[in-house]
Amino acid sequence: MVVTIIGVGLIGGSLAITIKENGFASHIIGVDASEENIDKALRRRIIDEGASLEEAAHRSDIIVVATPVDAMKSVLIQVLDLVDQQVVLDVGSTKKALLATVKSHPKRGRYVATHPMAGTEFSGPEAAIPNLFDHKCTVFCDIEDSDTDAIDIAKLLYASIPMTITYLDAHAHDIHTAYVSHISHISSFALALTVLEKEKNENRIFELASGGFGSTVRLAKSSPDMWTPIFRQNRDNVLDVLDEHINSLARFRSLLIKNDFQTIYELIEQANTIRKILK
Amino acid sequence: MVVTIIGVGLIGGSLAITIKENGFASHIIGVDASEENIDKALRRRIIDEGASLEEAAHRSDIIVVATPVDAMKSVLIQVLDLVDQQVVLDVGSTKKALLATVKSHPKRGRYVATHPMAGTEFSGPEAAIPNLFDHKCTVFCDIEDSDTDAIDIAKLLYASIPMTITYLDAHAHDIHTAYVSHISHISSFALALTVLEKEKNENRIFELASGGFGSTVRLAKSSPDMWTPIFRQNRDNVLDVLDEHINSLARFRSLLIKNDFQTIYELIEQANTIRKILK
Repeated sequence: MVVTIIGVGLIGGSLAITIKENGFASHIIGVDASEENIDKALRRRIIDEGASLEEAAHRSDIIVVATPVDAMKSVLIQVLDLVDQQVVLDVGSTKKALLATVKSHPKRGRYVATHPMAGTEFSGPEAAIPNLFDHKCTVFCDIEDSDTDAIDIAKLLYASIPMTITYLDAHAHDIHTAYVSHISHISSFALALTVLEKEKNENRIFELASGGFGSTVRLAKSSPDMWTPIFRQNRDNVLDVLDEHINSLARFRSLLIKNDFQTIYELIEQANTIRKILK
Repeated sequence: MVVTIIGVGLIGGSLAITIKENGFASHIIGVDASEENIDKALRRRIIDEGASLEEAAHRSDIIVVATPVDAMKSVLIQVLDLVDQQVVLDVGSTKKALLATVKSHPKRGRYVATHPMAGTEFSGPEAAIPNLFDHKCTVFCDIEDSDTDAIDIAKLLYASIPMTITYLDAHAHDIHTAYVSHISHISSFALALTVLEKEKNENRIFELASGGFGSTVRLAKSSPDMWTPIFRQNRDNVLDVLDEHINSLARFRSLLIKNDFQTIYELIEQANTIRKILK
């Protein structure tokens, strides 16, 4: 298969490395708004060649849109305007707005909306790594709008990695990702800002930071170019979850004020049941 | 050196393994309120023998108090009542209340207040691991109240691991740890509760959870026996930092409501500067 990756950053680049290494793709064409990214991706052998969107779409069996989610709307329409029998995938973190945009496109059937649930706090071609997606989960959204043969090819791609596939409608996808991904990022950004503010007066505060702080704040290194558009497109769900999270924190606050450590103990025990999910 | 460890859990047990392996301790005596913990620690060869507090204190050169911080106050007084020339250390996560308790004890000079800044979300002797403390930082508090020879022996112990040593007064220590450790735990507990609450209605939500969620919520697995006493003893500082953290989150909330994504972008860029601290 010849595969075009539009946006050769963390996600697109990692996918390119993986499906080339496992033999699913025989040839990878990179398309990127940044000439520098194409150069980096060529030097790191993430892609076999760079090309224009038109040329790449014409010569590919599969086209994967892996840009930030704000650019994705117009790029996806451009791609669908170009394709005939090719299969088009996106790998974006929000789905409802994107799918509404292409709902009545004449080539909608060639497109399968997917979200491989994996990432790191780094970005750009230099952040692309093999094994990022190994044994993780990909969500397929609203597949009733995709052609059967396009779905089958998308399944083959993800099975080759290998990833498991879960099916959700776009609405449910965006709610779920607000809970298991987007709120974690806001929490980390806010925690980093809280501690950085304190550090202005207390230079030595970070000498004491160890593993626990590092893991909670790791996501605060994530790119604003990737995450601002995600928060914009999933604003309503993110606001709902953020309200609930602020309420959870306010509950701890109120218990601390009341010196009700028995209830704090019980809340921690409840929180511990997250063990059944996180191995 | 013969070293007694009181409380052979995650911290005490890991310290025992480390200083036995590196040769600093020739013999380790374990003291624990739980007979089962002593059995586990013996079976895992974390300690060489179990003994009563009186016998262990009498036969040791160094006595390390590694219980949860609520038990520490009375245990530390008991130990200081027993010692003559032995050196006594604690490894607790809060210091102000503990140091106030022993301020005028006739044997105060034999005691050095230390806090090795390392841990995991697990607890008990089964959680004890070598290398937990390698190249991390230990805080020594209020050393002007400790005898010079006791400080020197404490320095040798931590240098053997090796750990670096930072000096803070107890008041500053408790503020700093509220920022770089205690708030991370409350944030994780609250995030776990938020998502677990949602899961009651949406069984499949965790299929999608990947690395980012895992690292932000990892600390939510931490023991209520260890953390409730920490929050009790450091209540005022934790409340201050929690207020600031809730304000940070409320700022994101207000920007989302106003659709001010430009400022959100700038806040994320600010949060990114945490990179200079977290490698």
